Amino acid sequence: MIFLFTDFGAGDLYAGQVRALLHQRAPKEAVIDLLHDAPAFNARAGAHLLAALAARLPKDSVVLAVVDPGVGGARQPVAVAADGRWFVGPDNGLISVAAARAKKCEVFAIGWRPENLSDSFHGRDLFAPVAAMLARGDRKTAKLKKAALAVSLGAGELGEVIYVDHFGNLVTGLRAGSVPRDRGLTINGRTIRYARVFSEVKAGEVFWYENSLGLVEVAANSASAQQVLGFKAGNPLG
Amino acid sequence: MIFLFTDFGAGDLYAGQVRALLHQRAPKEAVIDLLHDAPAFNARAGAHLLAALAARLPKDSVVLAVVDPGVGGARQPVAVAADGRWFVGPDNGLISVAAARAKKCEVFAIGWRPENLSDSFHGRDLFAPVAAMLARGDRKTAKLKKAALAVSLGAGELGEVIYVDHFGNLVTGLRAGSVPRDRGLTINGRTIRYARVFSEVKAGEVFWYENSLGLVEVAANSASAQQVLGFKAGNPLG
Amino acid sequence: MIFLFTDFGAGDLYAGQVRALLHQRAPKEAVIDLLHDAPAFNARAGAHLLAALAARLPKDSVVLAVVDPGVGGARQPVAVAADGRWFVGPDNGLISVAAARAKKCEVFAIGWRPENLSDSFHGRDLFAPVAAMLARGDRKTAKLKKAALAVSLGAGELGEVIYVDHFGNLVTGLRAGSVPRDRGLTINGRTIRYARVFSEVKAGEVFWYENSLGLVEVAANSASAQQVLGFKAGNPLG
Repeated sequence: MIFLFTDFGAGDLYAGQVRALLHQRAPKEAVIDLLHDAPAFNARAGAHLLAALAARLPKDSVVLAVVDPGVGGARQPVAVAADGRWFVGPDNGLISVAAARAKKCEVFAIGWRPENLSDSFHGRDLFAPVAAMLARGDRKTAKLKKAALAVSLGAGELGEVIYVDHFGNLVTGLRAGSVPRDRGLTINGRTIRYARVFSEVKAGEVFWYENSLGLVEVAANSASAQQVLGFKAGNPLG
Repeated sequence: MIFLFTDFGAGDLYAGQVRALLHQRAPKEAVIDLLHDAPAFNARAGAHLLAALAARLPKDSVVLAVVDPGVGGARQPVAVAADGRWFVGPDNGLISVAAARAKKCEVFAIGWRPENLSDSFHGRDLFAPVAAMLARGDRKTAKLKKAALAVSLGAGELGEVIYVDHFGNLVTGLRAGSVPRDRGLTINGRTIRYARVFSEVKAGEVFWYENSLGLVEVAANSASAQQVLGFKAGNPLG
Repeated sequence: MIFLFTDFGAGDLYAGQVRALLHQRAPKEAVIDLLHDAPAFNARAGAHLLAALAARLPKDSVVLAVVDPGVGGARQPVAVAADGRWFVGPDNGLISVAAARAKKCEVFAIGWRPENLSDSFHGRDLFAPVAAMLARGDRKTAKLKKAALAVSLGAGELGEVIYVDHFGNLVTGLRAGSVPRDRGLTINGRTIRYARVFSEVKAGEVFWYENSLGLVEVAANSASAQQVLGFKAGNPLG
């Protein structure tokens, strides 16, 4: 399976072009849109979200991970083998949290280049063809060469909102095990209590819980925590 | 074919996780996103929309139907066989209109539980695995047990806006046969005339017509009826 | 491969119905969502966007192209064979730019009609079944008859914003080869300079570049050109 994790926009014209290419180069492989609305231009938030999502993906998956504001500049394309999964994308920190948390991890520079490389869409022109190669088990054509990540964010927590879903739930970069449940969580100067599920709090009440990815998430029962708190992705807690 | 009908959000990170699971458990089955932007938290509107959509789906389809504000609480998971199609989801009314309108209908409690069940994402952890079982014809593993729906909305009409599309068209829960065409439809105190198609009215004019699902829909030619009328999903007509 | 290019809305309930039908009628064919957020009701902008996108698609593709404000009215359904690709959609200009730019092009009226044709959703009821026929190589059932396009926009440039992506980038209908790079581009009375890539300009600065489809695109580094300039699809440059 090839998974797509990008900030291309779920409704935009980019993901379809990537899918067309993947289908031509790896026609037997299922391609699954994991997320195309990762916070735009924000590799740091994306890195923590990707690490949480990827931990649940099947082994042998290939993850095409593209949040790439530096496209066309100096940042290098990399392929990372982490606990049996391949990650393909820019070396700008995006893959680094998943890499740092893996028990076993190898990093490779990608030597292969396409005949025609656009300046702005390496997701389609470079990363997708390499993802197809790796899904087919063809490391040779990709010209992988052992390397180290130039940008690494480490394995730790991130005390920020890293994603806001359409319900207005605020996903943070804190793993739930890192936050005591008997104390409140401070966000925007306000203390938010823990509850196990939405139905445990009153309609409209804001609380935090361990979401289905194992992260601390601030939510409101049948309402938008984002509207109540006025937060967006990239905002630090506290 | 497995169809997804949810309020997960088309751009959010939930549908991809469900797809990954379905592909692992039922790899030969086509999975089709019917709608991920059903009105959030609104099982009643969703029930009428689902009933209209489902009537057109192929027999032998499995429909994963999840609008589930009570997730983690007391509502029970059910599988409903209605006129040859399976519906899998929460027993909160969502499936009940399709069930009530079916010529032949059997309701089952789902006895199977996953090893790891998150508190907030039964769509991924419980309903999707069961949908995969039923798509593979494996009722035994799902541990189905004859039951009745705890919440039923009946087979009748719903005089409410149940869905607003991105054009601003207002889909109602009234089947077109239930509304006389020679009288106007009252919405928000205003009388709206019938027209067969968009091109029969002036640009910007609001009218109602029988939409492609057989429902009464309020629209405006090359404009947004929602903006003109100030309506949203859940608003009663009249 | 069958590609979908429409203004149905990526989050709306229309594309799923089309996919269900295509899967029933052409189950072996991959179906790829190229774009469902083409500018609504705007066949002219869509025509230029489609022409740029289609030039990159594999030969033997079938493109279902539906931006169809005149649905249910007098405009005719057509199938166009252009440089080895099929285009199926309404004869309202949408397919005409791709057709006019093709080296080899044949236009056909579609004689086939479904038993049940809704007044508002020919994408599902008429164009999708015909796309499935052509993907299967079955021109006979489609009852194709040589014809000419009633509406043609020609092969030239369009000095308009034809698409705005979720980053706020403004895609124009000008092919990049048609605009000199040493002179600025005038948009909304303001002169915009050329840069090769985002990372060549300061954060927040507006510039134009050749996008990955070969079109002139107005963008801002890590910001929204749309917000800075106040433009939307359909706005003329100048």
